[in-house]
Parts: sequence; C-alpha cells; structure tokens
Amino acid sequence: MGFQLENVISIKDFTKEDIEFILKEAEKMEPIARSQKTSKILSSKILGMMFYEPSTRTRLSFEAAMKRLGGSVIGFSEAAESSAAKGETLADAARVVACYADAIVIRHNAEGAARYISDIIDIPVINAGDGAGQHPTQTLLDLYTMKRIFNGIEGLKVALIGDLKYGRTVHSLAYALAMFNVDMIFVSPKELKMPRDIIHDLKEQSISVHETTRIAEVIDDVDVLYVTRIQKERFPDPEEYSKIKGAYRIDGKMLNGKDVIVMHPLPRVDEISVDVDTMPQCKYFQQAFYGVPVRMALLKALIK
Amino acid sequence: MGFQLENVISIKDFTKEDIEFILKEAEKMEPIARSQKTSKILSSKILGMMFYEPSTRTRLSFEAAMKRLGGSVIGFSEAAESSAAKGETLADAARVVACYADAIVIRHNAEGAARYISDIIDIPVINAGDGAGQHPTQTLLDLYTMKRIFNGIEGLKVALIGDLKYGRTVHSLAYALAMFNVDMIFVSPKELKMPRDIIHDLKEQSISVHETTRIAEVIDDVDVLYVTRIQKERFPDPEEYSKIKGAYRIDGKMLNGKDVIVMHPLPRVDEISVDVDTMPQCKYFQQAFYGVPVRMALLKALIK
Amino acid sequence: MGFQLENVISIKDFTKEDIEFILKEAEKMEPIARSQKTSKILSSKILGMMFYEPSTRTRLSFEAAMKRLGGSVIGFSEAAESSAAKGETLADAARVVACYADAIVIRHNAEGAARYISDIIDIPVINAGDGAGQHPTQTLLDLYTMKRIFNGIEGLKVALIGDLKYGRTVHSLAYALAMFNVDMIFVSPKELKMPRDIIHDLKEQSISVHETTRIAEVIDDVDVLYVTRIQKERFPDPEEYSKIKGAYRIDGKMLNGKDVIVMHPLPRVDEISVDVDTMPQCKYFQQAFYGVPVRMALLKALIK
Repeated sequence: MGFQLENVISIKDFTKEDIEFILKEAEKMEPIARSQKTSKILSSKILGMMFYEPSTRTRLSFEAAMKRLGGSVIGFSEAAESSAAKGETLADAARVVACYADAIVIRHNAEGAARYISDIIDIPVINAGDGAGQHPTQTLLDLYTMKRIFNGIEGLKVALIGDLKYGRTVHSLAYALAMFNVDMIFVSPKELKMPRDIIHDLKEQSISVHETTRIAEVIDDVDVLYVTRIQKERFPDPEEYSKIKGAYRIDGKMLNGKDVIVMHPLPRVDEISVDVDTMPQCKYFQQAFYGVPVRMALLKALIK
Repeated sequence: MGFQLENVISIKDFTKEDIEFILKEAEKMEPIARSQKTSKILSSKILGMMFYEPSTRTRLSFEAAMKRLGGSVIGFSEAAESSAAKGETLADAARVVACYADAIVIRHNAEGAARYISDIIDIPVINAGDGAGQHPTQTLLDLYTMKRIFNGIEGLKVALIGDLKYGRTVHSLAYALAMFNVDMIFVSPKELKMPRDIIHDLKEQSISVHETTRIAEVIDDVDVLYVTRIQKERFPDPEEYSKIKGAYRIDGKMLNGKDVIVMHPLPRVDEISVDVDTMPQCKYFQQAFYGVPVRMALLKALIK
Repeated sequence: MGFQLENVISIKDFTKEDIEFILKEAEKMEPIARSQKTSKILSSKILGMMFYEPSTRTRLSFEAAMKRLGGSVIGFSEAAESSAAKGETLADAARVVACYADAIVIRHNAEGAARYISDIIDIPVINAGDGAGQHPTQTLLDLYTMKRIFNGIEGLKVALIGDLKYGRTVHSLAYALAMFNVDMIFVSPKELKMPRDIIHDLKEQSISVHETTRIAEVIDDVDVLYVTRIQKERFPDPEEYSKIKGAYRIDGKMLNGKDVIVMHPLPRVDEISVDVDTMPQCKYFQQAFYGVPVRMALLKALIK
C-alpha cells in the first residue's frame, strides 16, 4: 500500500496504516541515521526550512535527516531572517520557497499555518509545530521510541505527565496512542488537566483512561512515564507553581528498581533530575536520536 | 564565444551576447532546477554568501542554484553574523571568505561594495544588490521571464510601473531592455518619475520611451506590466501617499480579459491584489522560480 | 602511528607526533582545499556546529573543510539560535546534537566548555575557542603556516607581539612552538606581558625566551612577527591606550627590505597597516587559507 499522505500536517490525518508504514520505514533508516550505511536517494533534492520560531532540535534533526539521505537544505531559522519583516505574507513566502525546494518544513507561531500553506503550494508540506496546534513528527518519533523499546506499541500502559492542558505534544500523542489500544493515565495538577473533549474522544474509542494528580500512584503500573514541562506562566501565584513543580519532578530515587522508561520531548528544564540521565530508565536522548530515522522515513515517503 | 565576464557586478558590464548566452544556458538548466534531472557539475565547489542585509529570496535562490548543481554553500545571512561587529573591514572579510570559497555572492547596503571587493580578490564576485546600486541577477531573471513567456524579448512593449525614481531594479531593467529594442512606457506618480539621465541615455539609443501617470492609459497597449512597490517613506505627506498608492495598485478587475502579463520582483506588499494570483496574467511566482535556472547558468559560467 | 586523540580540546593534549601527523596530512589536503582535486571521504558524514559566540572565520573554515571532503554541516551560529534560550543546559544540547552528527565543533564563552561536553558525549569534540581558554585549531594552522613557508618549524625565531597577557592564541602558540625548539621573543607593553607561569614553563623546557617592549629591537633578528590585537578595554586610561597602540602597529615602512614574515590570527583592526597587505612579508591571508587544509586533516583523523 505505502504512504498515502501528500502533506504531514496533523497526526489526525494519519490512518493507523500510514503510521505503521512510517515506523517500519524508519527502522530501515536507522543504519543510515547512525552513519553505518550511506544513501543518496534524495541526492539533488532540496528541503526548504521555514522556521518562524527557533527550534534547534526539530530543525537540526530535519536537516540531519535530509543530509543523511544525500539531500540539501535551504531556508531560514528565525522570523527576522525571513522576508516577513518586509511585509511579505506567509502565502507569498511559501510560494517562493516552493519555487526553490522539493518539500517544505514549516514552524510557525500561528495555529493552522502549515495547513494554510499546504493548500496554496504544490510541493509537500511538513508541519514542524504551529503554535498551540500540531507537531505530528514529534508524535511519530514518540511512537517509534515505544515501538523500538518494547517491540510494539499495542497494549502498553503509558502515563502522560505534567502540563496536559496546554501541551500540544501530549494532545497529539494521546490521539495516536488511542489507535494502538494503549491504556493511558493522565497525571497532572488539577489546574492543568487533559481537556475534557480529548478525554471524551478517547472514551468514545473505548480507550482505558485514568486521571490522577500523583505520580507515585502510577509508577508501578505503567511501562512509560512521558514527562512534559510545567511552565511557570501557567500559574498566577508563584508559590502555587513552586509547590506543584516539585511534585511533578522525576528523580533517580523515585525510579530506582522500577520497570519503567522515562520519555521527554526535550528540552528538559528541571522536571527530570540529571541523576536520571545515567539510569537504564532514561530513554529521552535515545528518543531524540529517533527523530532522525523517523524524519528520514517521512522525507523519503513525501519527496518524489 | 561563451561568457566573457569574470564577475557579475552591473548589468551595464554585459554585452547583448553575454546576456543571450546566460539566457540560453538558463534554459538548459530548467530541468535540473525543477529536479527532473540531476547534475554534479559544481560538486566539491563552494559558494561563499556574504549577506550584510537579509534577503530571503535572493539568498535562497542562489543557494538552491548552487545545490542543484551539486555544490555547497557557506556564509552569513546578516551583518550581525559577520565579523564586521569585531571591526573587520569589508576588504579583509572578503579576502578571508575568498580563501574558503570558489565564488562569492555579496549583498551590501553600500553602493559599489561588490565592485570594490571584486577588485581585491581573485575569485568571481556576484553582486546580489548593493544599496541604491545594482542587482544584475534580478535583471537577468526578468529578461529570462519575458523570453520564456513570449519566446523572445525583441520588440516587446513593456510598462514599468511604480517607484521609478528610487527603484534600482527598474533602472537596470530599462538599460537591459534597451539592448533588445523593447518599447518602454514609464508609469509613475510625478514625484517618482524615471530619472532624466536614464531617459536621456535610452533616447540616445533610439529607444521608444513614453511616460504617463495612469496605468489605464497603457494596459491595452503593452505586453508586460512590470510592477514595483511605492514606499510610504518617499512621501512627506501621508495623505498624498494614500491617494497615490491606490492609483498604482493592480487588481483582478483591471486585468480581466486583457492580453498582458504581470511581473513583480517581489516581495509584493499590496501593489498587486491577491485576486490576481490565480489569473493567467499572473507571472510573478513563475518569475521567482526563473531566478534559479538563471543563477545556475551564471554559477556554471563563472566557477572554473 | 597515526593520530591518537579522540577530541581536540587543548594543544597541550597533543604530542609532537600528533602535531606532526596533522601538519603532514594537511599538506595532502591542500589541493582539495584549493578545489584542484575532489574528495568524498566524509560523504554522508555530518559535522555539528555549536557556536554560542559568532565567529565567521573559524565557523566558515570548518564548514569549508567539511564540505571540501564531501560532508555536510548542521548547527547554529549564535546563542540566540540555540535552545539555551529555552533553559536547556549545555550538556543536554550537546547530547542532542550528538544524536544528529558524527563530530561536534563548539565555540563557547565559558572556559572548559569543550572539555566538559567531550566527557559527556561519545562523538569527537573539537574546541573552536572556549572563552579565555583554548583555541587549538588556530595554533595548528599557525604552525602549519610556518612549516609551509620555512619548510620546517625547528629552530625558527618568532616574535609574539601585542596583548600577550590576555590573548589565548599566543599562550597556546607559545606552548606549541616550545615543542619545536623555537626561540621566542615576547614584545608587549609592560601592562600586557606574557604571564609569568608560561615564561616559567617554557624556561623549564630550556626554551630561549626574551622579552622586550619595542618591535624595533627584534625586527632584524626574527623570522616571524606574530601580531595580535591590543584591546582598548585593557587600559583604564584612554590616553595610555592611544600611546601604546601606535607603538605596536606594524606598517610598510617598518618592514621594507626586512627578511621577516607577518602573521596575524585575524580579524585585524589597525595593528597592521593596510599598506603591508601587498608586501611579500604579508602572510596573514595565506595563513587564513591554511585553516582549511589543517581542519580537513583534523576532521579526517577524528571522524570514523
């Protein structure tokens, strides 16, 4: 069957088959991503990077993915470098970059930006984060990490931890995990609970969903602790933030002897103690690496 | 004969034969620019980009041109990234980049900057805009656009519209069109008329030149409307600007049924209404694409 | 024997054999650096550039070195582009770039930064300047320049001139020259003399070391004038600075007929008069070029 999508805008556009196709392709890409094998399949192809917001990790892993496949990259890494300063619209900028490139990766602060330009231009568009909206390639690499570590996603128990209200990463991931019948436990302060409509959608799909405010309650029952950052700005009262911050911090003592892995989309600030970094439970750097083979698989599937 | 220039500084350095050579070569480059064919003729060559002013379009199209030919790019995209901040002179910076690269593309706010460094260093220099000075590769892609659309430039009727006083693009283009016996009509507010010395030069070459303040007068007679932006800063009185702005704005209604094409060097702000974008008269995005094969032809001709 | 180092952090980590190996390899790289020969030995390899401080020269010459060998480059060229702004630690940033690249070049304002990340990550790290600390690739290209011009370093007489107190370049260079039994003369204002501990170390190695405040005293006796910049900020009294500045400025009159070469790590401000640029004594631009073959040799030696 292969991959049917022409753009990668939202994880909701993916069928389970689309996702499985990419995860399978990513596995073949791993030796190339590790520079143990070489590939020239995208030689002479150009990826256009339109990054209106800086994002080292996502930008560099797309660039690495393109270059590992023999391709080239052009673009800009912040709005100031773009022609937006001269009053050019996003639509015009995208049309022009589309003249120079074979696919576009866009990161923009406005929700819907990626979809908007994909409707205007003829080459594939990949959404690398659109404000409060989607970040589908993050979700795919999260899934790939679970698949590689557990040899499959089906039937896992995953705790999503931290800011579940505003975090676009956990929203997309929850929808994707639902396709694989993953049991989900949402662990957050009461101010930052998973939105009701998402809970509702998941239950409609007969997904087992639990909510709690305490990590200790779930740590013995789950396979994955997926940790996200709680931002100070979400709390009007700084004292309230300080109290909560501590309660959602993962450290080595908490993990010792536990049969669980820790994932994080990074950058991490202090929600995971550095003493976790050297423990076998730490998988967030491996997860970062997996961004490369997953993005290689997407680039190969999209660029003709 | 081939191409005799060692640098591309001003369109006035080009003979008609030089221009025709590049336009012909650009045509051969098109399938590579569209990624339908691959080329490695500049493999292992390096293009040094010295962009003291940001310019997405010009910078990215040069980068795409170099990479489509198998070459690499190094450089900086704004003055802050350069060593100018450390007090280094332009001459020293150019000498150093010339140690690392096989050709240099420079954009600088000071008129004459490109010529200046081309006198100092041994590798080819391409001017990508020097303040109020020249932008010869823009002129070449403008000519190429007309050639591709009309199958030749000779004998066309072209209206240059907007700010004809300060616009370096239209000055260079007027001189180049004169070589091809193009009839020119200059359409501008009286405050922004084509400079008298240019009119004089053109008439000396027996070029048919007309001037008017109204687009409506010319739209039925010309093949090309070449539109440029009128900047607010040119008018001491904001009210005067508002009045004039509207009069030099191209929209769909005005163009409907007309046998004319619309070109623009981009970025466009609001001097062309977006309803033109989907009309057959709209050629400004195609024009942007043509920047790639034209610059490929130049890079191939200059880099030994 | 070959090259034994896994990272390039400080010139003090190098044995004389390590240095000689790199200088010999660099010579083989020259035709490739000049684009007279092509190489693909680092094809499909990726160099990660972590530049927390801008540095056109060092950054571009590493990029050129990598690209001349067929490799690719990813990274950032200023701290603002990095994820440091989001609160990510240097350690985490390095771990992530290490997921995407085959070696890392880092420039950081904090002394010890390069060593610190080399202890954390598994891929080779090259120090491209860490604050007041080390800049070993500059030292290697300085040595290479002397070797190429004099056909050997052993027994040369070298004057190090300017700010010898704070200049990391001259500190590293002095240690390296000591390995080659080079006679050194330190020429500086008394406020900016070579630190006593370095003088002590050199004398322990039986190196001939002299100090003076006057260039005129040494110019007839040495093979090399290695000039560095004296920064205004080092002097509390601006008048004192002005007086001193003039005394350490090299000009054409001073050099006329002298059998000596002038080197400078660049960027130069006004410590070397531009009338020197066209004299046979001027070697600082050639020196800049030599940064490419030397860095190519290092990249080849480090990246497996």
